[in-house]
Amino acid sequence: MIVGVDIGGTKIAYAVIDAQTGVVHARAMAPTDSHEGSAAVLARMESQIRTLVSDFPIEAIGVGVPGVFDDASGHTRFLPNLMGTWPDVPVAPHLRAAFGVPVWLINDARAFVLAEAIYGAGRGHDNVAGFTLGTGIGGGLVIHQQLYLGIAGTAGEFGHQTLALDGPQCGCGNYGCLEAFASGPAMVAQAHQLIARGQAPLLAAHVATGAIVTPAVLAEVAPHDAAVAQLLHTAFRYIGAGVANVVSLFSPTAVILGGSVANLGDTLFATVRHEVRLRCRATPVDQITIMPAALGSDAGMLGAACWAAYRAGVIRPALLAS
Amino acid sequence: MIVGVDIGGTKIAYAVIDAQTGVVHARAMAPTDSHEGSAAVLARMESQIRTLVSDFPIEAIGVGVPGVFDDASGHTRFLPNLMGTWPDVPVAPHLRAAFGVPVWLINDARAFVLAEAIYGAGRGHDNVAGFTLGTGIGGGLVIHQQLYLGIAGTAGEFGHQTLALDGPQCGCGNYGCLEAFASGPAMVAQAHQLIARGQAPLLAAHVATGAIVTPAVLAEVAPHDAAVAQLLHTAFRYIGAGVANVVSLFSPTAVILGGSVANLGDTLFATVRHEVRLRCRATPVDQITIMPAALGSDAGMLGAACWAAYRAGVIRPALLAS
Repeated sequence: MIVGVDIGGTKIAYAVIDAQTGVVHARAMAPTDSHEGSAAVLARMESQIRTLVSDFPIEAIGVGVPGVFDDASGHTRFLPNLMGTWPDVPVAPHLRAAFGVPVWLINDARAFVLAEAIYGAGRGHDNVAGFTLGTGIGGGLVIHQQLYLGIAGTAGEFGHQTLALDGPQCGCGNYGCLEAFASGPAMVAQAHQLIARGQAPLLAAHVATGAIVTPAVLAEVAPHDAAVAQLLHTAFRYIGAGVANVVSLFSPTAVILGGSVANLGDTLFATVRHEVRLRCRATPVDQITIMPAALGSDAGMLGAACWAAYRAGVIRPALLAS
Repeated sequence: MIVGVDIGGTKIAYAVIDAQTGVVHARAMAPTDSHEGSAAVLARMESQIRTLVSDFPIEAIGVGVPGVFDDASGHTRFLPNLMGTWPDVPVAPHLRAAFGVPVWLINDARAFVLAEAIYGAGRGHDNVAGFTLGTGIGGGLVIHQQLYLGIAGTAGEFGHQTLALDGPQCGCGNYGCLEAFASGPAMVAQAHQLIARGQAPLLAAHVATGAIVTPAVLAEVAPHDAAVAQLLHTAFRYIGAGVANVVSLFSPTAVILGGSVANLGDTLFATVRHEVRLRCRATPVDQITIMPAALGSDAGMLGAACWAAYRAGVIRPALLAS
């Protein structure tokens, strides 16, 4: 049994997982108190894992983190959505000392893709590309059931591909990134511009009630507001072009879209499939399945557990149940 | 020993190669007569290989082809730059029957990248991306000394990534492809527009002598003609953004640029390196070497030989001399 942990900005999810099959045998969840420091969070993680694993022999622990870490030391480097951003927090050494098993960290977007490729929507596919579409746009590549890492685990930065040389500036500093066109916050910012220009009356009425604008609100309003529909259509075209580029470069048999923006409905998937057919003329796109993620919010902890099982040598890709 | 063959639009190159080391032991070259059909070319290939291999025990033959083929049958499907486009020509079966050894086909851009990764500029690198910049823009990915294929060998279509959603139409049918902005013919077409608008007097004088415009001519004129310099700079920025996207997605340690456009000088490489630093903020770009190809016109036949050696089991990636 492997423990999978998924550290998020608002909560931490834990599970005891059979990494051979992806079956969850026990689970827990706790909110991340945004006022407490990393030491308090680590101590609480330890006690919650201890409760969870009391009935199970544990072989390794995998921890998905929302940012950058050092693989060799198991220290976090920069988790932008957490209190204090967790510079140099010894997550792996702390848990290793507490439980006496190997502990491995993994980026949360890579964990999502690994989980979906091995246990989820991509099961049975040889080469899988996954996108996380939400506050940011991340991704990852799984080749022959193995996560493809690149330098220091940085392969799969799908949100930071350039789609317009002199486009809008992205949070990363570059111009014209996919993320600058089509992340949740980018869509919301575009919607507020429509409101300010008086071009989205229904949305303006929504905001006037004191409610906030989210991508889900945009999807609700779109059928009744042409400007909002156009905004979403353009964002979905950018996502489609980003998927098409991954397909042209990598030619996977499965592309999996997850995250809050991927839940906006069939229009997104229809637009993405159309753009891929339009743009990937040299690739046999009829052999590529573009599909929603299947594991929901479990993907992070499942991917972290799978990664730890690989790294600890508990399972090998070729020996996975398929 | 392996025979490597490189079928081009104007000539066919042959070599007897030690695939373990990449050393060429014998070589030959012959023009492709554009009037003769595929049957005549095949017969001549057979006789030229027979002369070449007379002193060597041959274990396999690899053939690089400028287009699409069927891997299982070894028939060509569509070679756009050859007379008759070679639909369903049994290249591998013909040579297999003639020489009694396994014969494997490989796309010429993939052969270039494999050769440069194993024997050339990328030697010693684990993960390599290569671009062929010329009449078209192709590419390929080598992971742990193995060519990464994707579906039917279609991974690596770097020239057909979208860099502007509604950009100029590409020969492939898509809009805004890298190739539509920065292939040799795209640059030449842009130069003729400058001439037509009276914006490139030096270039106009060159054409008035009866000479043709090539990318090399543009590079010669650029220091003396601001509009031509701007044209090249913009094309190089597109190439840089295309390289940056491959880096963001794939995070290789080596990127190799080959083909006629890569020979236009240091300005191209300086611009590409600048764009990669600008655009790949999440990737440790100081660990990535962006460099020119090292094997010149030998890359095609070396890559074809390496591929045949892999496929025939004569060498395995892990056993290569490094």
